[in-house]
Amino acid sequence: MKQRLYAPGPVELPPEVLAALARPVLHHRTPEYLELQQRVGERLTDVFMVPGHEVLTLSGSGSTAMEAAFINCVPVGAEVLVINGGKFGERWLRIAEAYRHPVVELAVEWGQAADPAELTALLRKHPATAAVLATHSETSTGVLHDIEALSRAAREAAPDSLFIVDAVTSLAAAELTPLAWDLDAVVSGSQKGLLTPPGLGFVWLSPRAWASSRDLHPRFTLDLRKRQGGRQPTTPATSLMVALDVALELLLAEGLEQVISRRTRLNEQLLQGAEELGYRRFAERVSPAVAALTVPAGVSARALVKHLAQRGLVIGGGQDQLADTVIRPSLLGHADDYDVGLLLAALHEALKALAQS
Amino acid sequence: MKQRLYAPGPVELPPEVLAALARPVLHHRTPEYLELQQRVGERLTDVFMVPGHEVLTLSGSGSTAMEAAFINCVPVGAEVLVINGGKFGERWLRIAEAYRHPVVELAVEWGQAADPAELTALLRKHPATAAVLATHSETSTGVLHDIEALSRAAREAAPDSLFIVDAVTSLAAAELTPLAWDLDAVVSGSQKGLLTPPGLGFVWLSPRAWASSRDLHPRFTLDLRKRQGGRQPTTPATSLMVALDVALELLLAEGLEQVISRRTRLNEQLLQGAEELGYRRFAERVSPAVAALTVPAGVSARALVKHLAQRGLVIGGGQDQLADTVIRPSLLGHADDYDVGLLLAALHEALKALAQS
Repeated sequence: MKQRLYAPGPVELPPEVLAALARPVLHHRTPEYLELQQRVGERLTDVFMVPGHEVLTLSGSGSTAMEAAFINCVPVGAEVLVINGGKFGERWLRIAEAYRHPVVELAVEWGQAADPAELTALLRKHPATAAVLATHSETSTGVLHDIEALSRAAREAAPDSLFIVDAVTSLAAAELTPLAWDLDAVVSGSQKGLLTPPGLGFVWLSPRAWASSRDLHPRFTLDLRKRQGGRQPTTPATSLMVALDVALELLLAEGLEQVISRRTRLNEQLLQGAEELGYRRFAERVSPAVAALTVPAGVSARALVKHLAQRGLVIGGGQDQLADTVIRPSLLGHADDYDVGLLLAALHEALKALAQS
Repeated sequence: MKQRLYAPGPVELPPEVLAALARPVLHHRTPEYLELQQRVGERLTDVFMVPGHEVLTLSGSGSTAMEAAFINCVPVGAEVLVINGGKFGERWLRIAEAYRHPVVELAVEWGQAADPAELTALLRKHPATAAVLATHSETSTGVLHDIEALSRAAREAAPDSLFIVDAVTSLAAAELTPLAWDLDAVVSGSQKGLLTPPGLGFVWLSPRAWASSRDLHPRFTLDLRKRQGGRQPTTPATSLMVALDVALELLLAEGLEQVISRRTRLNEQLLQGAEELGYRRFAERVSPAVAALTVPAGVSARALVKHLAQRGLVIGGGQDQLADTVIRPSLLGHADDYDVGLLLAALHEALKALAQS
């Protein structure tokens, strides 16, 4: 059966990226690999929009990058504030709890975008907050939180607090300018908008975040200071780096702005087309990384996801309390207009089939 | 220029493994992937020789697996003993120091094997030692430490101490029977004897190690308890897992004992052939994973490694104080008898070329 991957990560990869994975393995101490590593580093600063800075690559997932950012700039025991509007806001909460930090939570209803005024109010009550942990694209709800406004609100209410952003699914899908928005950490992963298999995490820290060296958590492989300047204290995932190099070349050849606008357009077309079929958009403020859709009344989202999977088409299902009502197809991968048509036809067929059953 | 990889990891991969990397990406929540994950898990227990147990796979390097084993069974602040006979013994030291543990060091001269009697004596002086951290194959010196005897010595002198083994380069290269030898943790990585690209680490813990839940270090992605029973709290490196599945199938089809005996034989042939050329073996007790060789007097090991690299042939160089005198070719990868011939011819040619220059 033909397999099709339309989940919000891992995503379908361009054939050039798959072919690069099959190249003979490079040793990580050879001039050839060091050159590739440097080129990937430069391309990552372009995609992260942090010219002249360094984006570090880790073996691991987006969560590894989240954890690394957290333990490399938040002092042991410091109070942190988590903006929590879904599964990935929850992940920040779990990380802060695992490291035994007191947590103030800005709980956001699933599907809604966080309100900067609420953040201001909460930070005024907690002026000692060492860091605000935010999600740019909340993949579980399809919401794109307004990081620019939230960061500004945080900076005004708690000027010394760090602002740390999970951009795992938003990178190269939505506008993100860490320097202009005065962010302190941005993390992402390889298997989403960067069109590479899962297994790499990325971390960018601001000079302010790098400077916070007071009472940091014990750590070894995730000690980012040991990785600055292209150093490799441990063996990197060289084959994934080779694939990432090709993927970044493709993305930057198209142009970051063009990639973002294509993804925004395809996702919007998918949402609109699905609305005409009777689905409803779930997110108040839409992330281009995923089309969160409430299925029509009387239809089980779970059954619909299963129906598609049985035909080789993989989309994201609703998570937790949304499992019965929401589906999450995504065009974040190697996708164009024809994929929108294919997905809408599949969503239409599935509704008909489930109505008959 | 034709490239050849004879370093003690990353290693040359079989073409079937490279081809598997280029397959379309699998989503990690699909039945197809879950089936593969289970099969890989079963094959890993065969290679680790721990039938009925679970070997956990992490995204990361061998060092990630070392760190994970350490923080998941050694209580905060407990005294540990490190057997340190090279760069990877040192790595255990650095991990213990990063987590601020008091460390007793059994310093072993580079090239020598650790003496079980010395371990006994040291443990008698430090009966509160919570864990002994050992290296099976010390890749920097080519020494295979006698883990069976060291573990027995530790168990007699300090019965409650955990015995934790770095088997990053020894797995599937030297005999290793964790249950018979009464070990508590064995860690490894994908890019050595398992013929897979770098990017995966493996951890096996004994029931005694799993039971040690007293005052463990804070951790998130490396919390092994959250990964038991095939759970995936974060996105796994699916493409590397697909490659690992193929590599394990190849290794187990040949037979683990046969693989180990082939690697032992090839490495010994390389050592003997090199001795006839004027090189001397560096390791007192030889690891089949790497042929550590002292170059003839008057020759620079550094220049020899560079000479080969300029002709596309990558071997390991000497590390730290051995950089000028030792080379470390390895047949741990996809290698057979013809590779021994090729390497010996290359080592011969390089000596002649350097003598003339």
